[in-house]
Amino acid sequence: MILVTRKAHFNAAHKLWNPQWDQARNEEVFGKCANKHWHGHNFELWVTVAGEVDPDTGFVVDLKWLKKIIEDRVIEPLDHSNINLDVPFMQGRMASTENLAMAIWDQLWETLQHPRYRLYSLQLFETPNNSVTYYGPGFGGLPPAP
Amino acid sequence: MILVTRKAHFNAAHKLWNPQWDQARNEEVFGKCANKHWHGHNFELWVTVAGEVDPDTGFVVDLKWLKKIIEDRVIEPLDHSNINLDVPFMQGRMASTENLAMAIWDQLWETLQHPRYRLYSLQLFETPNNSVTYYGPGFGGLPPAP
Amino acid sequence: MILVTRKAHFNAAHKLWNPQWDQARNEEVFGKCANKHWHGHNFELWVTVAGEVDPDTGFVVDLKWLKKIIEDRVIEPLDHSNINLDVPFMQGRMASTENLAMAIWDQLWETLQHPRYRLYSLQLFETPNNSVTYYGPGFGGLPPAP
Amino acid sequence: MILVTRKAHFNAAHKLWNPQWDQARNEEVFGKCANKHWHGHNFELWVTVAGEVDPDTGFVVDLKWLKKIIEDRVIEPLDHSNINLDVPFMQGRMASTENLAMAIWDQLWETLQHPRYRLYSLQLFETPNNSVTYYGPGFGGLPPAP
Amino acid sequence: MILVTRKAHFNAAHKLWNPQWDQARNEEVFGKCANKHWHGHNFELWVTVAGEVDPDTGFVVDLKWLKKIIEDRVIEPLDHSNINLDVPFMQGRMASTENLAMAIWDQLWETLQHPRYRLYSLQLFETPNNSVTYYGPGFGGLPPAP
Amino acid sequence: MILVTRKAHFNAAHKLWNPQWDQARNEEVFGKCANKHWHGHNFELWVTVAGEVDPDTGFVVDLKWLKKIIEDRVIEPLDHSNINLDVPFMQGRMASTENLAMAIWDQLWETLQHPRYRLYSLQLFETPNNSVTYYGPGFGGLPPAP
Repeated sequence: MILVTRKAHFNAAHKLWNPQWDQARNEEVFGKCANKHWHGHNFELWVTVAGEVDPDTGFVVDLKWLKKIIEDRVIEPLDHSNINLDVPFMQGRMASTENLAMAIWDQLWETLQHPRYRLYSLQLFETPNNSVTYYGPGFGGLPPAP
Repeated sequence: MILVTRKAHFNAAHKLWNPQWDQARNEEVFGKCANKHWHGHNFELWVTVAGEVDPDTGFVVDLKWLKKIIEDRVIEPLDHSNINLDVPFMQGRMASTENLAMAIWDQLWETLQHPRYRLYSLQLFETPNNSVTYYGPGFGGLPPAP
Repeated sequence: MILVTRKAHFNAAHKLWNPQWDQARNEEVFGKCANKHWHGHNFELWVTVAGEVDPDTGFVVDLKWLKKIIEDRVIEPLDHSNINLDVPFMQGRMASTENLAMAIWDQLWETLQHPRYRLYSLQLFETPNNSVTYYGPGFGGLPPAP
Repeated sequence: MILVTRKAHFNAAHKLWNPQWDQARNEEVFGKCANKHWHGHNFELWVTVAGEVDPDTGFVVDLKWLKKIIEDRVIEPLDHSNINLDVPFMQGRMASTENLAMAIWDQLWETLQHPRYRLYSLQLFETPNNSVTYYGPGFGGLPPAP
Repeated sequence: MILVTRKAHFNAAHKLWNPQWDQARNEEVFGKCANKHWHGHNFELWVTVAGEVDPDTGFVVDLKWLKKIIEDRVIEPLDHSNINLDVPFMQGRMASTENLAMAIWDQLWETLQHPRYRLYSLQLFETPNNSVTYYGPGFGGLPPAP
Repeated sequence: MILVTRKAHFNAAHKLWNPQWDQARNEEVFGKCANKHWHGHNFELWVTVAGEVDPDTGFVVDLKWLKKIIEDRVIEPLDHSNINLDVPFMQGRMASTENLAMAIWDQLWETLQHPRYRLYSLQLFETPNNSVTYYGPGFGGLPPAP
């Protein structure tokens, strides 16, 4: 078992906005992130696949193939998009980095499920200072408090 | 004479759009950057001031002061904004990185003009792969071709 | 369960010095790090919180709030400090990166303990080449040797 | 238990080549990476050791010592080498990043096995976009699919 | 006049070797860089174009076009190559970073010469610690010593 | 003419303090940087040499030699030092980044003066957000204001 990680990028606009709240409440909670005219980011995505090495290639997965999967299923719909308006798999979800990472997991999960390997984790940077890391819905339960 | 450089950040949405062209022409020239729903970036700005060292402080400029000038005159209007719609000093200008750097120069120039120092250059990164560098309107004429 | 990470910075002086040893022994073990006149670093701290997403906000935690907690409890006492002399929570402890990371954990733990989330890990870089990662006192026991 | 990570670098040439395949098959699978004249990378290696803090030093391990171990056992044989031709511990193995990380583990494991600490993980970057992470042969079995 | 910079990457093998010297002399001068089995790097290239902004686009040059020029004329021949053996424009030249940067200039110069803009400088990183910057053959004469 | 740049690092403590001022005035001007117990940084130094390529080597300067010069004349006195107390060439000078860069220039200038090349510039980062760039005492006079 070894982990292989591939980095990808996309640039997108979004806003943080709860449609069940009025504007004042949205601005109170989300501050400038609720700007009705949107703002945006250069998102950086690290996709990690875990598996056994194929002895014929020395690879867990062919990175050219992995790059293409990420390109087709994640970068193509997200790059130069408005996350709230343009991205089918984000419709009806708050456009937070947390929700976006979980939606990207769903985009990748089936294709990266194979007897020898599978999707292991995603790390999504909204800015160089902020990121989320997701190990999938099977990663659960907080470890017991010390 | 020595140069002092301070880095700042802002996150913003924009689109590339020439209002004198129809949508087809805009999409032909600007591709995905013309998305009518906007996209966005984490912009990174390097502001360089050139001058002599003040013997009392060892500084060309106090970086706390320089940081505040950049904050007030550049980051405050641009951060979490839509460059096309929200930023007074970008009204009526194409929202390219080149034009944005020149507009930021105009925002900073007067305040950073002093007998002992002045604004020397700006480098504005739209993404880690793309940037523009501006030395002001006085930097002119291409060096003669070899 | 998803992890959210926020980066912070502080600049500080320290020395590595065991008060139960004489100077020769300290210099033998710690080399230049035992310089009696101190040396210093730009420390970089990654704080990771694990939890469930709040459906109203799409957040595990509000990053503005998390930033303020880190600022008040970690950056304020450490930034531009002498770790050995100035920092209440490092008194009587060797000023190694390991001990500093564990002390920062203690500074943050209670505030970042909530039914929906809690402090998950810290990564503290002393230089771009050296870091420690701490998962708290509950992370224990070396996995069995292969 | 706390983790300590040290970064190291080496520059090397390699090619991806399965000696049981003919050239056409190698080029079909490995593309430009099968160039018979080699290509190369600046590899970046993160070595993580897990253990308890020594109360006399505040250290899990002395980083000067860890740096020397990595230098002697990994960097010395790999830096400015041809991984396929020059490196004793890679003979007879496909020169993929996965296999190289596992071979580096074997180079470091015994020396970094101690009652108070042991080698915990390696992360090996082939490029800034591609890396593998290895937790040793004891890290096994994919977590159950959600 | 404003400068626009675009980053590109290539991975390649090379060795430093003066064919007029014997092996002992090459090893004395170039050390491990003269390894007869080659070594390699992830090269990073910054291409800077200087010019006036086109008022119709807000661009000095269209970055998609600039990216394609760099791709066709520089990355295609160099990526996953052996610089000494495979690259037509490096035949008969020592494969140093200096010579490579000057050869890349010659690859780009004509295409990036236009009434409104021209190639201004190249910065080529061999490693994150080493780079060369070239302003073309017209940049000459050391400034007078102070 | 081509420029060659080499990066180096040192970790040091300092404080900003004008000995002709009392403590209140120092704290008013320098804020936390005047902490009497010092603070510190990971400094990053870029040394640039300009010159012609030696046709026998393809080098402007041998980077192993340049590295050793920087090591001997800059890193050795500065690394793990207190800049105010320990560094001979900073005695009697305010320990600002500007003054430190100019003092490093004086340390390197003579050795890097050669008929074929000479020291061209230094860039000294105090933090990733703050740096100074020095072209030597011969770089003078602000360009005329536009």
